[in-house]
Amino acid sequence: MADSVLTLAECADPAHAESGICRLPIAGACLFPLRAISVPGGDVLHMLRTSFPLQPGQDEGIPGGDKLAIGEVYFSEVLPGHIKAWKRHARQTQHFCVPAGHLGIALYDGRQGSSTKGIVQPLVLGRGGQACYALLRIPCGVWYGFTALGNAPALVCNAPDLPHDPAEGEKIAFDSEEGMAFPFDWGRPFPNPLAILP
Amino acid sequence: MADSVLTLAECADPAHAESGICRLPIAGACLFPLRAISVPGGDVLHMLRTSFPLQPGQDEGIPGGDKLAIGEVYFSEVLPGHIKAWKRHARQTQHFCVPAGHLGIALYDGRQGSSTKGIVQPLVLGRGGQACYALLRIPCGVWYGFTALGNAPALVCNAPDLPHDPAEGEKIAFDSEEGMAFPFDWGRPFPNPLAILP
Repeated sequence: MADSVLTLAECADPAHAESGICRLPIAGACLFPLRAISVPGGDVLHMLRTSFPLQPGQDEGIPGGDKLAIGEVYFSEVLPGHIKAWKRHARQTQHFCVPAGHLGIALYDGRQGSSTKGIVQPLVLGRGGQACYALLRIPCGVWYGFTALGNAPALVCNAPDLPHDPAEGEKIAFDSEEGMAFPFDWGRPFPNPLAILP
Repeated sequence: MADSVLTLAECADPAHAESGICRLPIAGACLFPLRAISVPGGDVLHMLRTSFPLQPGQDEGIPGGDKLAIGEVYFSEVLPGHIKAWKRHARQTQHFCVPAGHLGIALYDGRQGSSTKGIVQPLVLGRGGQACYALLRIPCGVWYGFTALGNAPALVCNAPDLPHDPAEGEKIAFDSEEGMAFPFDWGRPFPNPLAILP
């Protein structure tokens, strides 16, 4: 099933979890729906397995072996109503999962020479409601930013392919003059995956 | 600093985060205090870095290279008042971190021939209060179980050294006859790291 491609609507449907990759309208950005397994006492939530087609450090397709190619693992908590934006990386590819809360995340392709330059892609990641429990790959060079939706904090887990290196990350504050010029309005209601279908 | 050894009290003190490993009274079990970095909009929480002395798939000491030796990454949510116990693994070493909520976790060494056979080690993992924000290594063969403390769900992130293999995991329900014979009482108030100091 590694070569199957899902629509965003399929991606938001738990029936399609871990059955294929959903390509986003920004070149190199994609989602891999994950399973949230209901068990007594609380859910078990998949994030990364060597058998999954989408993994850090690997092009699509299952590489085999018994290790994932992860450079670091960390969390970013986002308090309700707060925005963490914008950031991009020169060499590190991000792999986001949201095990708690609902995260509104926006990608913006400002890459020179990209076939999708100028495209903005908003998404809601998380469990339940209209959110999509999935692994999000953000390619090098693509700007991203996120906010917590609703009244609870959102928790991002990121497993990039390379270790942290402050020299390859770049930030522009969303509320700076330069950040306000990005083609995305953080004040509008954040769309859910189904609402952003073309 | 990789060869420094912390006491449990030091481990529970954020001033010692990422300065050394805390050896627990069960052979092979240890804690590595992690940093929760306060930034506008919500904390950034470390879990695994190639520069840390405690990593999946590695004995203590920084191995170098730009990849961590992780077999899978998943989450286990624990709803308030619920218990998930007991479990042990024949080959997979667990690496637990608790980015949300407070987790009461108990380890029980039932290994034949272990120098610490029969020891029970309870701990509280999480941020704030008397909890310890740290990476917990649970060695092969050691039984473990956990519960959520307080009124919020607790979230465990686990990055074991080997991929999931149902054939090497073993479970005994805490409320079964066999589980009730374990030398740990889930009904008592759960001790915090400072309270369990010898």
